[in-house]
Amino acid sequence: MSDRTEVKRDAHPFSRGQLEGLMTKRFFYIQAFEIYGGVGGLYDYGPTGAALQANIINQWRNHFIIEEEMLELDTTIMTLADVLKTSGHVDKFADWMCKDTKNGEIFRADHLVEGVLEARLEGDKQARAKEAGETIAIPAEPAAGDDKKTKKKKVKSSAVKLDDALVAEYTSTLAQIDNFDGKQLGELIRKYDIRSPESGNEVSEPIEFNLMFESSIGPTGQVKGYLRPETAQGHFVNFQRLLEFNNGRVPFASAQIGKSFRNEISPRAGLLRVREFTMAEIEHFVDPEDKNHERFDEVKDIQVPLLAKDVQESGKTDITTKTIGDAVAQGVIDNQTLGYFIGRIYLFLVKIGIDPTRLRFRQHMSNEMAHYASDCWDAEIHTSYGWIECVGCADRSAYDLTVHSKRTKKDLVVQKAHKEPKVYDKLVATIVKKNIGPKFKKDAKIVEEAILEMDQKKLGELESQLKNGSAPLTVCTGQTFELTTDVVTVEMKTIRETVREFTPNVIEPSFGIGRIFYSLLEHSFWTRAEDQDRGVLSLPPLVAPIKALIVPISSNEKLAPLVKQVSRKLRSAGVASRVDDSNASIGRRYARNDELGTPFACTLDFASLSKGTMTLRERDSTAQRIGPIDQVIDVIRQLCDASLDWEGACKILPEYSGQQDVEA
Amino acid sequence: MSDRTEVKRDAHPFSRGQLEGLMTKRFFYIQAFEIYGGVGGLYDYGPTGAALQANIINQWRNHFIIEEEMLELDTTIMTLADVLKTSGHVDKFADWMCKDTKNGEIFRADHLVEGVLEARLEGDKQARAKEAGETIAIPAEPAAGDDKKTKKKKVKSSAVKLDDALVAEYTSTLAQIDNFDGKQLGELIRKYDIRSPESGNEVSEPIEFNLMFESSIGPTGQVKGYLRPETAQGHFVNFQRLLEFNNGRVPFASAQIGKSFRNEISPRAGLLRVREFTMAEIEHFVDPEDKNHERFDEVKDIQVPLLAKDVQESGKTDITTKTIGDAVAQGVIDNQTLGYFIGRIYLFLVKIGIDPTRLRFRQHMSNEMAHYASDCWDAEIHTSYGWIECVGCADRSAYDLTVHSKRTKKDLVVQKAHKEPKVYDKLVATIVKKNIGPKFKKDAKIVEEAILEMDQKKLGELESQLKNGSAPLTVCTGQTFELTTDVVTVEMKTIRETVREFTPNVIEPSFGIGRIFYSLLEHSFWTRAEDQDRGVLSLPPLVAPIKALIVPISSNEKLAPLVKQVSRKLRSAGVASRVDDSNASIGRRYARNDELGTPFACTLDFASLSKGTMTLRERDSTAQRIGPIDQVIDVIRQLCDASLDWEGACKILPEYSGQQDVEA
Repeated sequence: MSDRTEVKRDAHPFSRGQLEGLMTKRFFYIQAFEIYGGVGGLYDYGPTGAALQANIINQWRNHFIIEEEMLELDTTIMTLADVLKTSGHVDKFADWMCKDTKNGEIFRADHLVEGVLEARLEGDKQARAKEAGETIAIPAEPAAGDDKKTKKKKVKSSAVKLDDALVAEYTSTLAQIDNFDGKQLGELIRKYDIRSPESGNEVSEPIEFNLMFESSIGPTGQVKGYLRPETAQGHFVNFQRLLEFNNGRVPFASAQIGKSFRNEISPRAGLLRVREFTMAEIEHFVDPEDKNHERFDEVKDIQVPLLAKDVQESGKTDITTKTIGDAVAQGVIDNQTLGYFIGRIYLFLVKIGIDPTRLRFRQHMSNEMAHYASDCWDAEIHTSYGWIECVGCADRSAYDLTVHSKRTKKDLVVQKAHKEPKVYDKLVATIVKKNIGPKFKKDAKIVEEAILEMDQKKLGELESQLKNGSAPLTVCTGQTFELTTDVVTVEMKTIRETVREFTPNVIEPSFGIGRIFYSLLEHSFWTRAEDQDRGVLSLPPLVAPIKALIVPISSNEKLAPLVKQVSRKLRSAGVASRVDDSNASIGRRYARNDELGTPFACTLDFASLSKGTMTLRERDSTAQRIGPIDQVIDVIRQLCDASLDWEGACKILPEYSGQQDVEA
Repeated sequence: MSDRTEVKRDAHPFSRGQLEGLMTKRFFYIQAFEIYGGVGGLYDYGPTGAALQANIINQWRNHFIIEEEMLELDTTIMTLADVLKTSGHVDKFADWMCKDTKNGEIFRADHLVEGVLEARLEGDKQARAKEAGETIAIPAEPAAGDDKKTKKKKVKSSAVKLDDALVAEYTSTLAQIDNFDGKQLGELIRKYDIRSPESGNEVSEPIEFNLMFESSIGPTGQVKGYLRPETAQGHFVNFQRLLEFNNGRVPFASAQIGKSFRNEISPRAGLLRVREFTMAEIEHFVDPEDKNHERFDEVKDIQVPLLAKDVQESGKTDITTKTIGDAVAQGVIDNQTLGYFIGRIYLFLVKIGIDPTRLRFRQHMSNEMAHYASDCWDAEIHTSYGWIECVGCADRSAYDLTVHSKRTKKDLVVQKAHKEPKVYDKLVATIVKKNIGPKFKKDAKIVEEAILEMDQKKLGELESQLKNGSAPLTVCTGQTFELTTDVVTVEMKTIRETVREFTPNVIEPSFGIGRIFYSLLEHSFWTRAEDQDRGVLSLPPLVAPIKALIVPISSNEKLAPLVKQVSRKLRSAGVASRVDDSNASIGRRYARNDELGTPFACTLDFASLSKGTMTLRERDSTAQRIGPIDQVIDVIRQLCDASLDWEGACKILPEYSGQQDVEA
């Protein structure tokens, strides 16, 4: 087969079941504790999956950390409860759940409402079709275009016709399902008499369930901890150290790759909604008054598919493709730094093999933004589950640093020199140290703090009250003290300000590695036109778990030394390879490695011994080329580091059309 | 300074305080949640520490996983409680703790006894010295030779002389401190009236404290989970999948790098005893009847320092250095596979920079072996805390696979074809399926299982009882049933066995990355003979966080484009570099990077612009060489991948003795 053969990847429709079967059979990943019956939302990665994941992470590290000189961190998973209380996660990182009042089965409230209403609409469709004498197929799995974040456990539908008005109500409710709080979900449950789907029992009022795994640190049980729900807090609590490391200057970015946890109520959709997952997060600290980016020019001409919030708010989902430069200039993307990262995210995803036609950046609407974010764009990838949020790119503003600073009373600020000193007048309170202690005794400190916290307006009032003799001061404890000029004076002073002090804003690109991993597998999987059972994973060489398969044509022991030699040479060329010297036919060995996503196969036959040649098979086209062993290895090396493509390789190595030389 | 200058690294004694200061100042690592007051036993790694750790892990992956084609895994941290119940961790992974009966302070019981007795011995020494008219210095920190695993919070000593007999008793107790259980520790506490050191209160009887962090999976609270205390169980529960992936053949090894957790009672000694840590574990599955290793020849001539158990049991600590080949031949090391890994561990540790003269392999004595191990050698590294266990290399025998198989009723076995089929006679029970159900009804299954579990002896008894009419059978529930020949028959059959079925043994090299990381820092740290304040970290280029510093001689903007160019060239040569274009003097910039362990500095001056040359400074000797920019970069590349040493570099690049060319 020549390199000019078109590879027809869409001869058969995508089958999720077939891909999942392949994942298990080839041990990409599997539900954890399988021999113990498995635990929902926990997955183990086997050798192929772990290698693919490691390669994705490695590319990420090169693309972001190395290329942009980010400061890498490795902070703890076990997190002091106080930190997550401050960040808002203890109060707000929760989902609504309700319980079957008789058998205790637990549901995520929004999923329950959604599942039941969808089933009723489905039943209505069936009833109407029956009425009209049509037959309607009941889909076994959601259609590929289904725009939902996760697959929900299918609620059984029965053919019952609904009022037209009710159909409209259900449809409108479903469109807004992400926006309801617990109380509203409870109202919907009562209004539509939503019950536990299998038992038919009533369900309880929705209650909040915090999604963090809780534990306790040390033997006393007094220090509460949570497994982190994101790596971000580990960056924020170390901000001052990071800033110092960067010589006090912003912008800079820290980055961290590691596990985070989310105790889902009912995990679903395989790798897309899990309880333990690998994240890669960047926190880019920037001056709020200057969100331009030094390297913006490098991304400004990249065309990206955007779905802005105003489009969604008008009820549409039309994607507009424009350059990042235009999007920032038009204010669709708020600033250069956000735009820069959207561009870099796009380049990264496409580089590792995500289909750019199934990728979009969707801006959060104001009602769906996380509690800390001021603007957010998600990189969403299209899969058989619909559009999946795989990367969030949020502007967290100064939220986190501000709350941690307030809670710990530590300055988490940047000092930046003004080009010209700023000169202005300002009221300043001066505390008479030697008098305030004796006068207020144990309360002196609290009084002093209250004075120092006063703004210009309050200082103005204090100034005039002091002129009249004394001023009452109410402190945070509710106590009131009388201030007089022997303990404090207020004066107008001329300030010459040489530095500006500010809390930096944070732009946070946050990657869900498992979701990207799964989406990549869907985008890479297809089956051969001539045989639907022969699956292929067209992973780019850059991330493929194994780059080259070494296949001796037979188990003749004369070939063994050559196999070892080629294996060693590939290893020193930095190419991860595997030998398949099993007794299976050569076609079967190729097919097995198509399923593992191995892009190249080197076949050694008796001509290799006599003439020193080796054939090179390309996975997608199954085309074979031939050349001297060392030259073929060099071509593979270049194909793997992406300095050569297959077309280029075909110019170097001639076509091989003969049969493999099975016997000498 | 020429390359022939001897680098005098021992001009000043090692100061742990100075190293720790450097670690904080340069943000290698820091106690986690510092701004919240910190949490014991949890540490965050900053940019330099994270990079050093990533480089160590990367070398580990190359040395073990890639080089030996191991099957990498990434299994979950959150572990089903059942799994750890089966493995024995729920019952046995615990330490003894006791409480101050009045203020509630908690102590690890063995640490408490040890601390108090050591303080009394110390006080005795002082009293005796006083008597003799000597002065004795009270050491501020344990002596470097102190053979203890961790530093204990120092108990204050006071000069009280003890009886000679009591001194001997205390000394003997301390020598065995690791061997006492809770009851024995309680007896020691009462016998020696050991009290809470600061309050002087009595302490409670020691109670067991399980060291696993507990949590609960999902919203119901019914599924209990623990954070894994080791990655090993993730390998074992996936054994059957791994075996299948390896085409059913042993030996093979799986490997995993990841976080594990241990909820220490009172964490101490910095990175050496922590609550969250990175491990790298290998599980090598092997036929118990053949523990030879295919690549044993590659390690057999390596000389390793061994401390065998019989030496320790005779009360000595003499290290014997011998080749691995001899050690295995003499039975000191039990088998080739264990020997092979000891050799590979040795090579790895030395490669990343551990001082081979401060490394030993100590065999566990029988009373200190983990509950699952049948033999164990620890790679111990000498630090200022004494000898520290950094790698365990245990033969876990068939323990784990056996218990998981028994618990889950899943076969975790290997089938290996006999070269010749084995033919022998054997009693076999045949169950009459159609009768057993009707006869025993709901108990039929339990009866059937009990029959199938019978060994040859029991089957012999059953056979003769059945001949006499009927046989009583007592099952696991305690019930007794009457068996007759209408439900079961026993016959002697000739068996032709073509495969042998066995549970593989597991050899487990398990690396504590944080301990290796810390030991490496101690072995690398020294201060310049001429200035004790100038610390140097002599990390090998292979693992140094940053390989090359780029230093423009001045901030003259003419140099800027050249700095960018050199930076880009180093990046494409795969050399991690950093620019220091701060205003600090060049000496100060060099010194700063000596503290970061950066092995090379490229200095760009005005000769670089006019003549295209660059100087190369070597960190340890501070020697400088010069050459054309591209040549210097190529030399650095080779120095970093260890294909060239400094001596070789000096043959390529001439000495630079001039002053830096500050102005054109």
